[in-house]
Amino acid sequence: MFIKNCWYVAGWASEVTADDFIARTIIGVPIVMWRDSAGRPVAFEDRCCHRGAPLSLGRREGDFLRCMYHGLRFDNAGACVEIPGQDRIPDSVRVNTFPIIEQHKWLWIWMGDPARADPALIPDTHWMNDPAWRHLEGYTHYDTNYLLIADNLLDLAHLPYVHPNTLGGPAAYAETQAEIEPLENGVRITRWAMDIEAPPFVQKVKHYDGKVDRWNKYDFVLPGLFLMDSGMAPVGTGAAEGKRVNAAEFHGCQALTPETEHSTHYFFCHPHNFAIDQPEVTASIHQSIVTAFEEDRTMITAQSRSLDLKPDFKMIPIRADRALGLFRALVKKITDEEARESAEGRKEIVAAETL
Amino acid sequence: MFIKNCWYVAGWASEVTADDFIARTIIGVPIVMWRDSAGRPVAFEDRCCHRGAPLSLGRREGDFLRCMYHGLRFDNAGACVEIPGQDRIPDSVRVNTFPIIEQHKWLWIWMGDPARADPALIPDTHWMNDPAWRHLEGYTHYDTNYLLIADNLLDLAHLPYVHPNTLGGPAAYAETQAEIEPLENGVRITRWAMDIEAPPFVQKVKHYDGKVDRWNKYDFVLPGLFLMDSGMAPVGTGAAEGKRVNAAEFHGCQALTPETEHSTHYFFCHPHNFAIDQPEVTASIHQSIVTAFEEDRTMITAQSRSLDLKPDFKMIPIRADRALGLFRALVKKITDEEARESAEGRKEIVAAETL
Amino acid sequence: MFIKNCWYVAGWASEVTADDFIARTIIGVPIVMWRDSAGRPVAFEDRCCHRGAPLSLGRREGDFLRCMYHGLRFDNAGACVEIPGQDRIPDSVRVNTFPIIEQHKWLWIWMGDPARADPALIPDTHWMNDPAWRHLEGYTHYDTNYLLIADNLLDLAHLPYVHPNTLGGPAAYAETQAEIEPLENGVRITRWAMDIEAPPFVQKVKHYDGKVDRWNKYDFVLPGLFLMDSGMAPVGTGAAEGKRVNAAEFHGCQALTPETEHSTHYFFCHPHNFAIDQPEVTASIHQSIVTAFEEDRTMITAQSRSLDLKPDFKMIPIRADRALGLFRALVKKITDEEARESAEGRKEIVAAETL
Repeated sequence: MFIKNCWYVAGWASEVTADDFIARTIIGVPIVMWRDSAGRPVAFEDRCCHRGAPLSLGRREGDFLRCMYHGLRFDNAGACVEIPGQDRIPDSVRVNTFPIIEQHKWLWIWMGDPARADPALIPDTHWMNDPAWRHLEGYTHYDTNYLLIADNLLDLAHLPYVHPNTLGGPAAYAETQAEIEPLENGVRITRWAMDIEAPPFVQKVKHYDGKVDRWNKYDFVLPGLFLMDSGMAPVGTGAAEGKRVNAAEFHGCQALTPETEHSTHYFFCHPHNFAIDQPEVTASIHQSIVTAFEEDRTMITAQSRSLDLKPDFKMIPIRADRALGLFRALVKKITDEEARESAEGRKEIVAAETL
Repeated sequence: MFIKNCWYVAGWASEVTADDFIARTIIGVPIVMWRDSAGRPVAFEDRCCHRGAPLSLGRREGDFLRCMYHGLRFDNAGACVEIPGQDRIPDSVRVNTFPIIEQHKWLWIWMGDPARADPALIPDTHWMNDPAWRHLEGYTHYDTNYLLIADNLLDLAHLPYVHPNTLGGPAAYAETQAEIEPLENGVRITRWAMDIEAPPFVQKVKHYDGKVDRWNKYDFVLPGLFLMDSGMAPVGTGAAEGKRVNAAEFHGCQALTPETEHSTHYFFCHPHNFAIDQPEVTASIHQSIVTAFEEDRTMITAQSRSLDLKPDFKMIPIRADRALGLFRALVKKITDEEARESAEGRKEIVAAETL
Repeated sequence: MFIKNCWYVAGWASEVTADDFIARTIIGVPIVMWRDSAGRPVAFEDRCCHRGAPLSLGRREGDFLRCMYHGLRFDNAGACVEIPGQDRIPDSVRVNTFPIIEQHKWLWIWMGDPARADPALIPDTHWMNDPAWRHLEGYTHYDTNYLLIADNLLDLAHLPYVHPNTLGGPAAYAETQAEIEPLENGVRITRWAMDIEAPPFVQKVKHYDGKVDRWNKYDFVLPGLFLMDSGMAPVGTGAAEGKRVNAAEFHGCQALTPETEHSTHYFFCHPHNFAIDQPEVTASIHQSIVTAFEEDRTMITAQSRSLDLKPDFKMIPIRADRALGLFRALVKKITDEEARESAEGRKEIVAAETL
């Protein structure tokens, strides 16, 4: 069961070109994305309403998409405008469409009630689209449920253990206490590690002679978005007071989008605002993130297998799990609400039909 | 659930040689086929009655087959004639056998009540065995239920969309109306496309300067047989009145044999009666069919995946689906009848045992 | 369902080195094995009690194991001794451990009640650790339930059919009658084949000019151990009276350890006491066994698939199946007893809690 009434990241805007389709399953629903003649993104259920053929094997014809199984043609609002060999086209012949918005390099899709698809609900990721910041676009795929990855992102105490050679740092990093603040739609986490070694991925591109003060401040919000202000600066330069002297600053943007109950899309980038005229610095940072995410994936995939073998496994909580617990409770609250609404909706429909 | 009392195509006769076994699962039952010393085909359940070992790993010994796990030996009627280390052989030690007939290059197997296995019920495919016609033997395998492939064959309006470069033709082909006639055991479909371009696969081997009149007349009958008289001739030569002037004629024979609920064997050939002394023409036609069937398989496999993701998907019918609906209703009627018979059979047995 | 209160072979002692972990699932439970600083084997559930991460991805730190997801550290008795960022460590924070003993080159693990883990119950396999005998260490993996492999080992009448070029012999071998004696924890089987050809695997390393008297005497005991005294000597040298003149003697030790309901670990070796100064003889014998076990695996894997297709398949027993029947009945008896005990245990707990 997934939350429906929220914006999911459906892809990088660069993936959906002028001419091609891209097929991607999101919360169990196959979606085909394309662009109309004005370049606007369009999202259809990737399943022809006729006999379920995938429209991503179809043909774009200007503002229209033709299913290449039996030739039905649809306009960019999903209405069928042509059935070969048939004059009358009932209104019911239409494919499901989904609100989709391109903003700051990501495509955002709304899988629930279209009437509630308010663009103002899309969180700010403008660092992906700001000339003062640089990044490369990342994507990886997990064969696990998205919540195990969310767990990982909700507790950065794993950095020294899973990522000693990339994002990590000394064990002391894990011993600092993170400040955890519940938000209406997620959790805000702030962690300062003072007077500590800079992590390997930064040392590669911006050498610090001595220790640094390091911060990670992020919101992890529904449905699975990680938006982080992080960085470090030499000890004594006043980073904790907001000064940014000889700092390495990052604005990580990461999005977990469930594919199925057992698999997840993971879109990510790690914009930085120093050495932005040196592509090799951007490439190095990106490669460190990619390597680190493979480290996470090895651990989380093995964890998932381990849990699958024992469905009644009871986790023993530790203090560091607090943010995980808050987020999982929030997900449960919203999915329960949506299930209730949907049940009430069905009852109202039945009642109306009975009148 | 599959129809049992009917002839299924079990393979090409050429597949079952004098010395070897061929193992193939048919409607969920593993079958081993071999030839006795007279060359007659024999079909056993591919499962030793002793402990279920596959007999296809056994050894042919003249008119006998020996299981190579524990050495039991069976005659070609399935009776056990030797148990190593044991003198008495109970009558119950026998493997299930199935009526199997070789006719016109195909092996036909009867999976239901052997008493009802009337060879006269095997449809005519003599074009596969007629010196005036030529073909190559084709086989492909699908990882989908056979009914999705039957749907495909029951509406050739898909030709211009799925097969533009092989079997297809202009969109106008899909706009012609097919005549659909219910048969006792299937559907008869007749489609004339007058004054139309010849399809690519014919243009490759028999060039037409102008347009043609093209016909496809076929029976699609239980359990999944496609038997077609098709072809084309230049406009104005009287094809529609039965004349065959400078015509390209074909007698396609295709058989869908379910392997499991989720996979299907597909035997096919496309005999032609022109240029039969030119093997390269036969090869070209065969290759066009093979290529086209890969096009179908790509579409249908993707459609199957799409439908698996939404078990409650309701197809929206269009006019072109009429033959599909008739055939699916017929399959349902027969499988329901067989389920009822089988339930009644069990009740009769119980009643008899109670006396 | 598997027997729990018994010693399973968990691996070759040589697999668990001083520094590394080895992960292996046993009767459905993921296990990580390692050695403490004294070289003693330790077996943990391969699932951190915190959030289920595999400890086999962890780090050995002397007598401690650290989970490399969130850094929890456990002593070699499974107790947590460190939680990063947390001072108090509740007693409940511990991982499950299992009794494990190294004896004669194998590691033996007890998956049931540790209080019942009596080392005296480990059967004798000292031939694997005796300077008068030589062997190589073997392992293979099956994608089938272990009972189908046990069936195979409980009736060596399959040798001439499955292994004609390795362990086999003439069909006459299968016609000899094995003496079958029920044991408390298994079956004892004795078979003498007098005046018979020596099998190919022995002819390769110890040529006999004439025929031999061949014996196979073995215990097949719970949970799936095959311990065999076998060999052959020239006809007329008094082998059946216990003489060993120009004999080829073997003490095969084989262990089936279920991985899951659908897969099995198979540890084996075939110690011999002749030509022990010729490594090529040991290698040849080992390779013959490896080849033969591939022959078994091909047959048994195909049998398993065949049985999966027909869950209600009723095997027709023959005389040679007697030992198989005895062993399967014993497995059922013990698993039923353990299920009953476990149900009673739960009832007692509930009753105690109600007081």
